[in-house]
Amino acid sequence: MDRIYLDHAATTPMRKEVFEASKPYFSDKYGNASSLHTMGQEAREAVEESRAIIAKSLNVSPKHIYFTSGGTEANNTILKGIALSQKKGGLFSKKRGHIVTSAIEHPCIMNTCEWLKTQGFEITYVPVDADGIVQPDVFEKAIRKDTFLASIMYANNEIGSIQPIKELSKIAKDNGIIFHTDAVQAYGKIPLELENVDAVSVSAHKLYGPKGVGFLYSRVLFTPIMHGGGHENGQRSGTENVPGIVGMGKAIELTFKEMDAEAKRQIVLRDKLITGLLEIPDSRLNGARTERLPNNVNVSFIAIEGESLILMLDAEGIEASTGSACSAKSLKASHVLMSLGLKHVEAHGSLRLTLGKQTTDEHIDYVLEKVPPIVAKLREMSPIKPSDKEEKYEDKCFKDSDATVPRGMADLGAKAPRGR
Amino acid sequence: MDRIYLDHAATTPMRKEVFEASKPYFSDKYGNASSLHTMGQEAREAVEESRAIIAKSLNVSPKHIYFTSGGTEANNTILKGIALSQKKGGLFSKKRGHIVTSAIEHPCIMNTCEWLKTQGFEITYVPVDADGIVQPDVFEKAIRKDTFLASIMYANNEIGSIQPIKELSKIAKDNGIIFHTDAVQAYGKIPLELENVDAVSVSAHKLYGPKGVGFLYSRVLFTPIMHGGGHENGQRSGTENVPGIVGMGKAIELTFKEMDAEAKRQIVLRDKLITGLLEIPDSRLNGARTERLPNNVNVSFIAIEGESLILMLDAEGIEASTGSACSAKSLKASHVLMSLGLKHVEAHGSLRLTLGKQTTDEHIDYVLEKVPPIVAKLREMSPIKPSDKEEKYEDKCFKDSDATVPRGMADLGAKAPRGR
Repeated sequence: MDRIYLDHAATTPMRKEVFEASKPYFSDKYGNASSLHTMGQEAREAVEESRAIIAKSLNVSPKHIYFTSGGTEANNTILKGIALSQKKGGLFSKKRGHIVTSAIEHPCIMNTCEWLKTQGFEITYVPVDADGIVQPDVFEKAIRKDTFLASIMYANNEIGSIQPIKELSKIAKDNGIIFHTDAVQAYGKIPLELENVDAVSVSAHKLYGPKGVGFLYSRVLFTPIMHGGGHENGQRSGTENVPGIVGMGKAIELTFKEMDAEAKRQIVLRDKLITGLLEIPDSRLNGARTERLPNNVNVSFIAIEGESLILMLDAEGIEASTGSACSAKSLKASHVLMSLGLKHVEAHGSLRLTLGKQTTDEHIDYVLEKVPPIVAKLREMSPIKPSDKEEKYEDKCFKDSDATVPRGMADLGAKAPRGR
Repeated sequence: MDRIYLDHAATTPMRKEVFEASKPYFSDKYGNASSLHTMGQEAREAVEESRAIIAKSLNVSPKHIYFTSGGTEANNTILKGIALSQKKGGLFSKKRGHIVTSAIEHPCIMNTCEWLKTQGFEITYVPVDADGIVQPDVFEKAIRKDTFLASIMYANNEIGSIQPIKELSKIAKDNGIIFHTDAVQAYGKIPLELENVDAVSVSAHKLYGPKGVGFLYSRVLFTPIMHGGGHENGQRSGTENVPGIVGMGKAIELTFKEMDAEAKRQIVLRDKLITGLLEIPDSRLNGARTERLPNNVNVSFIAIEGESLILMLDAEGIEASTGSACSAKSLKASHVLMSLGLKHVEAHGSLRLTLGKQTTDEHIDYVLEKVPPIVAKLREMSPIKPSDKEEKYEDKCFKDSDATVPRGMADLGAKAPRGR
C-alpha cells in the first residue's frame, strides 16, 4: 500500500485542477498585476476573478477580501491592525485596550496577543469546557468596557472542536466589539455562520490549494502590517502572488462544490476511526464528539509519548501528528489539551489523525490494525504505567517547568503554544 | 514579432528550470516542513537546501536567512522589527528613536518609515545628487546620537542608480548603527559588497523565480511582524511555502552562474537603447550614466505624459512602464524623479525600460523604431510645449497639490511614493 497521509490539518496536496489553473501564470501570463500594460492587466483580471470567487464563498463584498501570504499573516494582520488602530496615530479615535480570545487559539493568535501585551494591551484568554468549547456566558463575562476586539477560532486545529461562533459573534455585536474568527481549519469543511462576524482568516494550503497564500476578509479597516506600494486598497502592500491567488480561487471553488458530500463521507470514516481507537485500553477522545470537524480525530493513549508513536507509525507508512511534542530540550504539553483539563499523562500521549479527500475505508482499516500493537509496545518500553499517579509521571519523564507559558494563561493551566 | 516585455524591474517570467524544481513540491512532496513524519522531513530538507544556496550567494551563514513572502515583507520586517525592538518590551535595552534612509527608497521603505513616525520614531530622508546617488558625507551628516538604523537601497527601482553601499555601510558601522539595504533590484544583477551590511532584502520574482516569496538576511535579531508557531527560528512564523522556497533557490543558483555574462550583454543593449532614445529632441536620461543597473533605462521626454506613452507602446506590442503616473483623481510625480531635481514637465514624461534575459538586439531596434514617432505624436496632441515655462505646465495639466507628501520630505521636493 502507498503511504497513508493523515495529517490534512497540517497541510494538503495541491489538487491537479489547482495546478492546471495556476500554471499559465508562472511563465506565460507573468505580468505584475499593478502594471499598466497588457500583461499587467491580464494578471489583474485573474486576481480579481479569484477575489470574486472567494467573496461569493462567504457571501460578502469582494472589496473586503485582502490577499495575504497565509493564515498566520491574516491573523497577525487583523489583530495587530485593529489593536494598533486604537493607539495614537491609528485609525480610531477611541482608546480601548482590551482583547478577548480563547485559551485554545492557534499559536499565531496567542503569540500575537502576547506581543500586544508588550505594547500595552490587555488580553483575556477565555477558558473552554472539557469538550474544548467556549461557553457563550463565559465569553460574555470576559468582555469589559474597554474591550474592542474578540478573536475566537471557528474550529480548533488540534481537537477539531467547533465553536458556537453564531452566538459568540452576536454577543460581540451587542457589546459593540469587532469580532474576528480564525477559520483556517473550518472554512471549506463546514458551513460558516458569519452574519455578525467582522473578519475571517483563511489559508489556501489547508484546502488543496497552494502554500504561501491565504486571505483576510475584513469589513473594518485596520493599520496594515505591510506598508508599501498601496496594493489591496492600501491594506496589504506587496506584489500580488498571481499564480498563488489564482490557485487559491480554483481550490475554493472546487472545495465548496464538494463540501457537503465530502463532509458526510469523512464523518463516517472519522467515527469508525474514533470507535476503533477507543477500543485500545486507557485511551480517551480529545474534543467534542459531535461539534467536531468532519476530518478530525484526536485520541490520547495514557502513559505513552506521542512523538514516539508518530515515528513508529511513520515506519509503518502512516503519516500522523500529535498535539503534543517533547523535544530533547524542553518538554511542552499542548496548551489546547491542557485547557481541556487533561493530566500530563494524558496530554503527552495524543495522536491526531486528520482525514482528507483521498482517505479511504481501507486506510482506516490499516490504521486500526497498526495502532494497537504499537501502543502496546510503547507501553511496555515506558517507565510510566497508566496506573501511575500524575506526580510520579511528571517527575519521571515529562517535567516541563521550563516551558514558557504566556502570562495570564497560567491560571488556565495552559502551556506555551506551538506550531501547526 | 512577439510582444516585447521590457518591464523586468516590475516582474519577470518564471524560468523553466524553476518551474521544474518547484513542481514536485506542489502535489507529490507536499508535506508541511514542520511535520515530524517522512513527508514533513522531505519538505524540511528542501527548504534547508534552498537556504544554503541563498547563504552561499551572500557568503553568510544560513542561520541568518529568513524566508518571507517577498521584498515588501522583508523590508517591513527589518524596519519595524528593529524599530520596535528599541521600544519598551523590545529586545534592546537602549532607547534610540532615529532612522536614516534616502529620499528615493521604494514605497515599502518610505511608507513603513512614515508609519514608524506615528509610533514616535523620527526619520531623516537623505537627499540624492542629480544622478540619484546618496553622497557619503551627506549620509554621515544625517546620523545623530540617537540613530539606531540606516536603510539605503542598493540600486533604485526606477532609475537604476547604484548606491555606494560599501562606503555608507562602513560609515554606519563606525557610528554603531545597524545598516540595512533593500537589494530587491540589485541582487543577482551586480556583485554586492556586504562586509559591513547587517541586513538585506530580496524578492524572488525579480530573478525569474516565483512570486510570493523572498528572503531577509539579517545578522541581528528583531521583533517579528509575524508571530505564531515559531518558524524561522521564531523570527517569521507561518507554514513554509515549500515550492516557492525551492523555486527561489533554483532561480538564485542559476542567476548567480550567469550574472557576469548577462550583465555584460545587457549593458551593451542598455547603452544602445539610451543613446538611441536620447536622439529624440527634448529628452534626458534619468539616473547615473555608469553607476547604473545593467538592465535599467529611464528617459524623460519633456512635455508629454508618461502614461499615454505606455499605452501607445502597449498597442505596438511593447510592455514598458513609467516612473510617474497621472491618475484621473490625483496627479503625482515620481518622488524619485523629483528628488533628482527634475521639473514637473520632465518628471511626468518618463519612460522606464528594464531589460531581461530574453531581451535581444532586435527588440532594441524595434523600440528605437517605435518610440520617436509616438513621442512626436503625443507632443502634437499635448497642450504643453517643451519650451513652456514650468509654471504654465503645472497650471495646465499637472497640478499635484493634492499629492500626499511624507512629512519631512517636503524640503527635498519629493512627492508621495507609489508602487513598483
